[in-house]
Amino acid sequence: MQAELAEMLRRRGFLWPSFEIYGGVGGFYDLGPMGSLLRDNLITKWKKWYIQQEGYLQLETPTILPFELLRASGHVEHFTDLMGECRSCGGAFKMSELMKERGVEIEGLPLEEARKLVSEKGVRCPDCGGELNLSDFNIMFSTSIGPGSSKRAGFLRPETAQQIFIAFRRLFRHARGKLPFGVVTVGKGYRNEISPRQGVIRLREFTMAEAEVFFDPQSPRPPDFQKIEGERLRLFRANGETVELTAGEAAGRGLVCNEMMAYQLSLAKRFLLSLGTKEECMRFREQKPAERAHYSSETWDLEILTQQFGWVEVAGIAYRTDYDLSRHSLFSGVDLSVTVNGRRFFPHVLEPSFGIDRILYCVIEQAYTCEGKRRFLKLRADLAPFQLGVFPLMPKEELSQKAHQIYQTLKRHFSVIYDESGSIGRRYLRADEIGVPYCVTIDYQTLQDGSVTVRDRDTTRQVRVKRELVPVLSGLLSGELKFEEAGSPFSSKEEEEEGEKSEHEDS
Amino acid sequence: MQAELAEMLRRRGFLWPSFEIYGGVGGFYDLGPMGSLLRDNLITKWKKWYIQQEGYLQLETPTILPFELLRASGHVEHFTDLMGECRSCGGAFKMSELMKERGVEIEGLPLEEARKLVSEKGVRCPDCGGELNLSDFNIMFSTSIGPGSSKRAGFLRPETAQQIFIAFRRLFRHARGKLPFGVVTVGKGYRNEISPRQGVIRLREFTMAEAEVFFDPQSPRPPDFQKIEGERLRLFRANGETVELTAGEAAGRGLVCNEMMAYQLSLAKRFLLSLGTKEECMRFREQKPAERAHYSSETWDLEILTQQFGWVEVAGIAYRTDYDLSRHSLFSGVDLSVTVNGRRFFPHVLEPSFGIDRILYCVIEQAYTCEGKRRFLKLRADLAPFQLGVFPLMPKEELSQKAHQIYQTLKRHFSVIYDESGSIGRRYLRADEIGVPYCVTIDYQTLQDGSVTVRDRDTTRQVRVKRELVPVLSGLLSGELKFEEAGSPFSSKEEEEEGEKSEHEDS
Repeated sequence: MQAELAEMLRRRGFLWPSFEIYGGVGGFYDLGPMGSLLRDNLITKWKKWYIQQEGYLQLETPTILPFELLRASGHVEHFTDLMGECRSCGGAFKMSELMKERGVEIEGLPLEEARKLVSEKGVRCPDCGGELNLSDFNIMFSTSIGPGSSKRAGFLRPETAQQIFIAFRRLFRHARGKLPFGVVTVGKGYRNEISPRQGVIRLREFTMAEAEVFFDPQSPRPPDFQKIEGERLRLFRANGETVELTAGEAAGRGLVCNEMMAYQLSLAKRFLLSLGTKEECMRFREQKPAERAHYSSETWDLEILTQQFGWVEVAGIAYRTDYDLSRHSLFSGVDLSVTVNGRRFFPHVLEPSFGIDRILYCVIEQAYTCEGKRRFLKLRADLAPFQLGVFPLMPKEELSQKAHQIYQTLKRHFSVIYDESGSIGRRYLRADEIGVPYCVTIDYQTLQDGSVTVRDRDTTRQVRVKRELVPVLSGLLSGELKFEEAGSPFSSKEEEEEGEKSEHEDS
Repeated sequence: MQAELAEMLRRRGFLWPSFEIYGGVGGFYDLGPMGSLLRDNLITKWKKWYIQQEGYLQLETPTILPFELLRASGHVEHFTDLMGECRSCGGAFKMSELMKERGVEIEGLPLEEARKLVSEKGVRCPDCGGELNLSDFNIMFSTSIGPGSSKRAGFLRPETAQQIFIAFRRLFRHARGKLPFGVVTVGKGYRNEISPRQGVIRLREFTMAEAEVFFDPQSPRPPDFQKIEGERLRLFRANGETVELTAGEAAGRGLVCNEMMAYQLSLAKRFLLSLGTKEECMRFREQKPAERAHYSSETWDLEILTQQFGWVEVAGIAYRTDYDLSRHSLFSGVDLSVTVNGRRFFPHVLEPSFGIDRILYCVIEQAYTCEGKRRFLKLRADLAPFQLGVFPLMPKEELSQKAHQIYQTLKRHFSVIYDESGSIGRRYLRADEIGVPYCVTIDYQTLQDGSVTVRDRDTTRQVRVKRELVPVLSGLLSGELKFEEAGSPFSSKEEEEEGEKSEHEDS
């Protein structure tokens, strides 16, 4: 099914490898017409969740950062992977991946220790069997800012968080000098991966949605903690233990560092649920100390079970303590501490960080449904690239004209795709594959009484709707109106059959 | 007024120079909490315009491009500025700017010709008077993809267009093999400017919104040309002539290359009008042949008159002919020509390209209004960072509670800011500065009868609204309901006065 899905995703314009006509470059993907709309909807939803509902501030910043900033943040020193370069063929490999295949975990180990383990295992080049040269490779993309002798070293940002930290004083003032408060950035992040091989899961350029939540370490309980207190969390602890308990219990029993962490885990879980992820396909896995980024004292990965890649980390929730604010104070000479309740201190930071591309892939995989010969994307209506399809039953002038008119009206309220090429069955089939929840079809009866048929993607059932269309469709899309109540049952068996028949001719 | 506006934009969280605590880096800006929301709304509106209304496809692509692609596109060879580097102090200067100050235009001239003009003028280093070394500086940011000996040269994209061209075959198939069709990308673009000095107008990293419209050069008339035929265009032609005429006339008389150009100019103009730009502050200026990018055979700049920078180019509409598709065919070996109506040819391309950051600045400057002591941002409701403010009249428990309740309800339908700190006058003042169109205030009468007062930003008038709030506010925001009809007149003179009084204490 994976190959079939991948083929569909290319054919229907969801995603494909970038730079295809130049032979491609590993770790880069395009999001096509459908994939990019789905991504926009995903980001809009994330922003609603964190900006509108949680009330976090937003910051939009450059992706190029000067060297000084990333030295201060620790990335120049620590943002590295152990690389093996073949002395014979020149191939380069991420050693933690080669070792993982041999059942050995070296991620995060000091260079010398990792080197020892690699040499013990006698790992050689997987391509030609040559000897491997080991070194630490910094996986930031580097560049220069400005020309000639006045140029400055710079990097593409490995995370969006840093610019929130360095703008902290302005942001704190904007938050009226009160803690806690959150700031989000949604944008590109970059990792110059040594040898990315996992499609859309390991990208060199990706879209991140990060929130930095600043709080007083002496009172880490968010004001609306009771909102999530009862949320159940499945925790895979670093010590190997698995527990399932409420957010309140997790914080109370010290299984997570504090109530802010429990709150953010719950929020992240609820966000994923709202995208259609099933509860049983979701877990929190605590990173082992050696795995953790240099700035984190506790990190929980939110993982989703996929068919193609197994458990995939789609978000990381890290307790960054006062690491970043104190480092930037030290390196910049600008004091980023605050005085709150008569105490002077560096606020602590809890950071939920989401990988939008990975979530996009998981959402698609979850939504991909096979029922007999039928294939459809069971996407939530607020994520689907188009909410509605509008089709004339046949490409006849009088039907097309009426259909266009309805299309123009609906476009003002919804995202709508218009299609009149091929049989109606084929068009339903295409709409199913791109996940259009409801299709509106204009037939000869429409010309007589204005009624249309509306088809439900998930059941292929149809109703004839005589009422005013916009409120009916709004109701269906928001879930407030049941499909059966939208109109009278309508059957067009022949169309569905025709759709199945023409399935394999369709392009 | 410029200094006052700049100060307000920093204080209220619209924009500020990036990396401030590290001394800043020229050509980079942050968009703060208000600026980034305004930008999101601007992009949403642009996408509605081009994707939803025009039906263009969307493509989302990486910002890092491999060398081969940019050699093919001509950017490695042509994307350069003439640079003067001082032999004494090392300062670097964009020569076209130094020459422009002396009334000489060298933009686009061949290196030797430009060099001759510079030496004739005897231009020296503006900082120390030293001698200048002249050279062509490629203004793409360069980087490397991948590690060690297997690494490939790459650049940050100078425009988003290229990836649309190289994915042309997939996109054409998605458009069902029919011309014309359009594809848009909204995302970051990069120019490693030699010495950016114009704030948010000349950035090294910026957000672009580009559309590439592919058409048959033998039938360049868009199907819905009549929609814009009568649109009036002010054209400043390259030959010095100024004409004002309709889009239909401009195409018919050959003042623009074809009807597709006339259509795109009109569309761009209407988009700017929809943002609140005044017709008289807008013009199209034709680029002289030497000014044009290497890929363009005709370019019109859409310029807006600003107080701070004079006429500013906010969009360029270029006729790229078949330059890009034929070059990429040649360099990649993949044929990007099409067969339509029995003819085999390379589609031609018309490209409207918008600079989102510049438009953002122009929108703010236009909206900034001074009336006596009052300062407010007269932003359209669909652009304002927040559509509504919700305030308890005083920070009393019972009022706050009710206000919070109303805030929670309104948040589900609108973007809302809640504020209870400081006097009500101060809060109106702050809301005015960030352009909130309507403020809802909860007072003691609300507790009795549920009514609230609603205040209009532009007039400071207030009405008491007794009806259900959501439809009333929807009506006001969409412009379908007149303010006077929303409720009964309500006066609170003392609050406004208090606002003025406290203006200068406010932070």
